[in-house]
Amino acid sequence: MAYSPLTEQLMEALQVLPGVGSRSAERMTLHLLERDREGGQMLSQALQRALDGVMHCARCRVLTEQAVCELCQNDDRDHSRLCVVETPQDREAIEVSGGYLGDYFVLQGHLSPIDGIGPDELGVPLLLERVKSGDIEEVILATNASMEGEATAHYLTEQLQPLKVVVSRIARGIPVGSEFGRIDSHSLSQALQDRKPLGFEHD
Amino acid sequence: MAYSPLTEQLMEALQVLPGVGSRSAERMTLHLLERDREGGQMLSQALQRALDGVMHCARCRVLTEQAVCELCQNDDRDHSRLCVVETPQDREAIEVSGGYLGDYFVLQGHLSPIDGIGPDELGVPLLLERVKSGDIEEVILATNASMEGEATAHYLTEQLQPLKVVVSRIARGIPVGSEFGRIDSHSLSQALQDRKPLGFEHD
Repeated sequence: MAYSPLTEQLMEALQVLPGVGSRSAERMTLHLLERDREGGQMLSQALQRALDGVMHCARCRVLTEQAVCELCQNDDRDHSRLCVVETPQDREAIEVSGGYLGDYFVLQGHLSPIDGIGPDELGVPLLLERVKSGDIEEVILATNASMEGEATAHYLTEQLQPLKVVVSRIARGIPVGSEFGRIDSHSLSQALQDRKPLGFEHD
Repeated sequence: MAYSPLTEQLMEALQVLPGVGSRSAERMTLHLLERDREGGQMLSQALQRALDGVMHCARCRVLTEQAVCELCQNDDRDHSRLCVVETPQDREAIEVSGGYLGDYFVLQGHLSPIDGIGPDELGVPLLLERVKSGDIEEVILATNASMEGEATAHYLTEQLQPLKVVVSRIARGIPVGSEFGRIDSHSLSQALQDRKPLGFEHD
């Protein structure tokens, strides 16, 4: 005889979480129902509130409760620079490094045709639109130094090149193949300082 | 700058799950909010429904939506035999093995003084009460062959001995130190067949 229907359903549902298979879902379910119902209550509510309240910032696509996130609204930031990152974690890592005071654009991933993630999924149209709007002087491509990150940066360079804006790539101060989350703030800050304009001519 | 408040709160809440630290909670949160809000919706609801609807069976302490679980209500079962297991997974494993047709009592753990888990936490009073009620002829101690499982079986034997009931221990067909979840149904079924009465006298 299996578990009760509602227990089974919870085990099913937990498997939407990345890295959670049937065995860990079972362990999690029994933990919540046997030992930590209060924690389960908190989790269910926090999840519902986040799903209801959290959206994408209309300017940088980061997750926020506001239509435009606080950072995009903050006029102490240099809105003429736009740093393009793959994920909110990357943006957070750069913020912690303290080496950058401009705006961000969060792709929420990198180009990955095999997963059906193309320019539209990464909000590239919104990015180009924003650059065309004219108030941006420099776009800093701070995608990961991984193969996918480089490919994404290369694609964006081609798209941005015609737009009469300085396009630069974060310096290779970051170990090739690594991801931001793992790098100390200082190297990250250095890498941003050392960014080099990509050498193409504006005629 | 950190994540938005509701996003942070979700990352916090996810860490009530066993084996989930801050890094995986972050990954899970972004996955749910960026890529699978529908799955998140399902999870939040399944969790709420389980917390509201799932309780312990009044007879065997297993998780169920009913006051008394279906198995305890099923009159095709031999209600004169009671198989004591540590967890619902163990009960499920024995059911799948098909080697047993009596009732169960689920301790929901094993004696572990260091974790503050004593006889009361395991529902031992309820177990003894049920045996005293007189309709039980045999109690099969099917706790794990681990040190804790053996200790728990030993304690239960002492408690049950005075109660004029046959007390038997599941046979050592199960590898010492192992846990039921990992054992094939056949060995488990055999081990149940081979159970031996514990040799003490009823005067």
